[in-house]
Amino acid sequence: MRATTIHVAVYGAAGRMGQAILRAVSAEPRLHVSAALVRAGSELAGRTLREVHGAAAPDLEFADALDPDTPVDVLVDFSGAHAFDGALALALERRAAFVSGTTGLAEAQRRALDRAAADIAVLWASNFSLGVALLMRLARSAAQALPSWDCEIVEMHHRRKLDAPSGTALSLGEAVADGRGIALGACAVHGRSGRTGERPEGEIGFHALRGGDVVGEHMLVFAGPGERLELAHRATDREVFARGAVVAARWIAGQAPGAYSIDRILGEA
Amino acid sequence: MRATTIHVAVYGAAGRMGQAILRAVSAEPRLHVSAALVRAGSELAGRTLREVHGAAAPDLEFADALDPDTPVDVLVDFSGAHAFDGALALALERRAAFVSGTTGLAEAQRRALDRAAADIAVLWASNFSLGVALLMRLARSAAQALPSWDCEIVEMHHRRKLDAPSGTALSLGEAVADGRGIALGACAVHGRSGRTGERPEGEIGFHALRGGDVVGEHMLVFAGPGERLELAHRATDREVFARGAVVAARWIAGQAPGAYSIDRILGEA
Amino acid sequence: MRATTIHVAVYGAAGRMGQAILRAVSAEPRLHVSAALVRAGSELAGRTLREVHGAAAPDLEFADALDPDTPVDVLVDFSGAHAFDGALALALERRAAFVSGTTGLAEAQRRALDRAAADIAVLWASNFSLGVALLMRLARSAAQALPSWDCEIVEMHHRRKLDAPSGTALSLGEAVADGRGIALGACAVHGRSGRTGERPEGEIGFHALRGGDVVGEHMLVFAGPGERLELAHRATDREVFARGAVVAARWIAGQAPGAYSIDRILGEA
Amino acid sequence: MRATTIHVAVYGAAGRMGQAILRAVSAEPRLHVSAALVRAGSELAGRTLREVHGAAAPDLEFADALDPDTPVDVLVDFSGAHAFDGALALALERRAAFVSGTTGLAEAQRRALDRAAADIAVLWASNFSLGVALLMRLARSAAQALPSWDCEIVEMHHRRKLDAPSGTALSLGEAVADGRGIALGACAVHGRSGRTGERPEGEIGFHALRGGDVVGEHMLVFAGPGERLELAHRATDREVFARGAVVAARWIAGQAPGAYSIDRILGEA
Repeated sequence: MRATTIHVAVYGAAGRMGQAILRAVSAEPRLHVSAALVRAGSELAGRTLREVHGAAAPDLEFADALDPDTPVDVLVDFSGAHAFDGALALALERRAAFVSGTTGLAEAQRRALDRAAADIAVLWASNFSLGVALLMRLARSAAQALPSWDCEIVEMHHRRKLDAPSGTALSLGEAVADGRGIALGACAVHGRSGRTGERPEGEIGFHALRGGDVVGEHMLVFAGPGERLELAHRATDREVFARGAVVAARWIAGQAPGAYSIDRILGEA
Repeated sequence: MRATTIHVAVYGAAGRMGQAILRAVSAEPRLHVSAALVRAGSELAGRTLREVHGAAAPDLEFADALDPDTPVDVLVDFSGAHAFDGALALALERRAAFVSGTTGLAEAQRRALDRAAADIAVLWASNFSLGVALLMRLARSAAQALPSWDCEIVEMHHRRKLDAPSGTALSLGEAVADGRGIALGACAVHGRSGRTGERPEGEIGFHALRGGDVVGEHMLVFAGPGERLELAHRATDREVFARGAVVAARWIAGQAPGAYSIDRILGEA
Repeated sequence: MRATTIHVAVYGAAGRMGQAILRAVSAEPRLHVSAALVRAGSELAGRTLREVHGAAAPDLEFADALDPDTPVDVLVDFSGAHAFDGALALALERRAAFVSGTTGLAEAQRRALDRAAADIAVLWASNFSLGVALLMRLARSAAQALPSWDCEIVEMHHRRKLDAPSGTALSLGEAVADGRGIALGACAVHGRSGRTGERPEGEIGFHALRGGDVVGEHMLVFAGPGERLELAHRATDREVFARGAVVAARWIAGQAPGAYSIDRILGEA
Repeated sequence: MRATTIHVAVYGAAGRMGQAILRAVSAEPRLHVSAALVRAGSELAGRTLREVHGAAAPDLEFADALDPDTPVDVLVDFSGAHAFDGALALALERRAAFVSGTTGLAEAQRRALDRAAADIAVLWASNFSLGVALLMRLARSAAQALPSWDCEIVEMHHRRKLDAPSGTALSLGEAVADGRGIALGACAVHGRSGRTGERPEGEIGFHALRGGDVVGEHMLVFAGPGERLELAHRATDREVFARGAVVAARWIAGQAPGAYSIDRILGEA
């Protein structure tokens, strides 16, 4: 049964991530791009993927609306917060599973996503790297196993990144705080300078390095008496995020309605 | 009930690890050294810990036999393979829990340990570092979650270490192989040199660095397309092994008979 | 005077590195591709770079021979050992500076390169990464400064690499051995396994990790009593090698005849 | 000539570093402790090193004044800023070389040290680790060789350290800034948080991790396009600082008057 083709519609297909998703879906034997959706008025509408991406791409037109006859098992959305509502409505209308990596959602949009989970399978994540998903799990596990060890989180990104620390570093901090039953807000410190005094019990330190064109690296240090543990992830290619979304699409097709976490796709790659 | 004192007898008390255990037990409020056992004929027999270790040590004599009136809740053994049988027999005789870090056991000794677990609680480990115990758990978890990623294991120890790779590196390799349902023997490679050809699927590479006075470091690399994960442990003080054994002693006191893994004490430190 | 345009002919322009060089030269304001040379009979001959590489590339034809009227200040060669002699002869004929990254040269070819240095400026390197060039310098410096510390060299490359250790790892080992006045052959060990005994004084250990699609990483560890130094380089993009060759081309234009090392371009990037 | 014994007087002999120096000097064949000086009124005065440090220590009394007949080739001072003037005066009076690791000196004390260099050989350093001395040299060298790469400095120390970043991290930053001909004050940033915007050209980022009982680790990252360099030092034993001071004492004996840098002892260990 699992050998049947999975039809994937890509929402936000004109964006950088959308295009990476199109490439990654094309590279997966069991997946098939059934629709490449762009916003109304996009100059891509009506042109084929092959014209735009070259001979290796499928002979399918970018479109600004979904044809009712097009089969959709999974809708993958990397469109942007302004277009998210349309994407989710379309998935509900078609009873398709919904995979989204759109960030910057408003509270109302998050609630709509939760409600949708009553009717369709949804999986939202801020970072679709499989390695980061695993690091998140290991961080929580380490925080629980060694609750008294000091935790520091170091991340490095390229010199053009505009904010600090990265969203992924904060999520890792939340996994640690959660594993210890405390709130991150109460224990986070960002950098240290001057007369700091002794390190408070339970503090989580964040350190944001910037330089070169580093795609994204994250490390957690857990330091105890006479020993320590270091858990690190290095992304060297932006394609890892599209690849993870495609693994998620393959996994979620056929799942029962519900809200799933990226953690669920581990073991499926 | 848990607040009562736990009486610990140390077997192999004259050795380097035995002495570290004595110090570590003395530093724990709820634990009490009830006996410091040395081999028959040891020159330490009859002298007090205080004479040998200084004013901070308890005023207890080293002895080559256990007084029948001495209470023993846990017997901690770091004696050596030749003395192990005596240690285990004593624990069984006294119905004491048994914590052992003695390495180089013969197959018959391992079986005797398994049989003893029907009557008393036993916990044997080759490495009592809490961080290594956790690394073992995380290594298995990572191997399961990302079964197709390439795994390499790097360890570094001081220049006087006589064998390679370390027993802990091999145990980590077993955790990875086990997490993937394969046997380590079939996939391990030790170093690479010359015309190796492409890396075989499923191979686990071991790399043993030697230098300086490094206490012990272990790192696992899991490398996938465009990203990788690195899990590392660094021990900087040999006392970590004694400290872990003491946590194990505290945990095992009062447990039902059975064979327990060092993994069980995580979360107890 | 340095503000004038430097005319660069690329030999081996059809290869992967040749094409990367074409891109990298085009991105440098002061450099200009005057010729893109391919082997006789190449199917690229007669087609323009723009046809092959897209609108951003110069409107210049690939050619299998150099037009006598084409200006050449520097000839950059990444052709292959079989074509190297023709490249060097052309540079000598045109009195152009010669930058080459062709590996696998025969002894006679190396001698021809040395002789050419009497008439033109030549710079050959096995690795044109600026960071590796610097690491080489630092490795030698560290080996001299701390002659009694133990040195280990770790490298990691993608799973398809066919040999071990990498040529760059061996060059780093030579820099260390050279800094200590010993020959690498006498002190190199590749991996460790079994009853190794204590680490011999002066040994240099090599460790070749393979996995994923890692472009290339190298680390030297120098371990002394109670402390150690780690010097590491990570390449995350194959373009770094082309970029370094272009910095070399820019630097060597106008230099007096002689054989120059990649080390000379440090400080010029 | 170099084979003669070097007589070392230790100033501040009762302190933690002073005692480590006494142990380290005793372990060096060519060095001999001729005096162990403590402040007037110290309870150690009049007791022997052997009484205090055990049978392996020399049979020499702690004293609060230097006997005029005691030979002194080198005076090693780790006393404290309040006692520094007395130490320097004594070295000048005895025409002994002067090695000092006393921190927190006032501007006037620094000037007095400079003046003393006209008459005796002096070597002052904030960190006597040989590895750190080398890292300082390599950091400067890297900063000069790759002036456009982004530099970040990460350090980690134990949880009881009261200030951030470490003095050694700041010295490393000064070596980098100096290698680039800029002032550290103009380019240093300590941690990053919130909307930082793009990384300014030439910025040096400092990141102070705290946790466990880490003795001291420092890493510099230099990140360029597609590659980066990481230079790290790890101290695992506090004795490294005493050992470096002893190498300095051995080296400076017999040098001409002048102010020497710790960098000079590299190659002498």
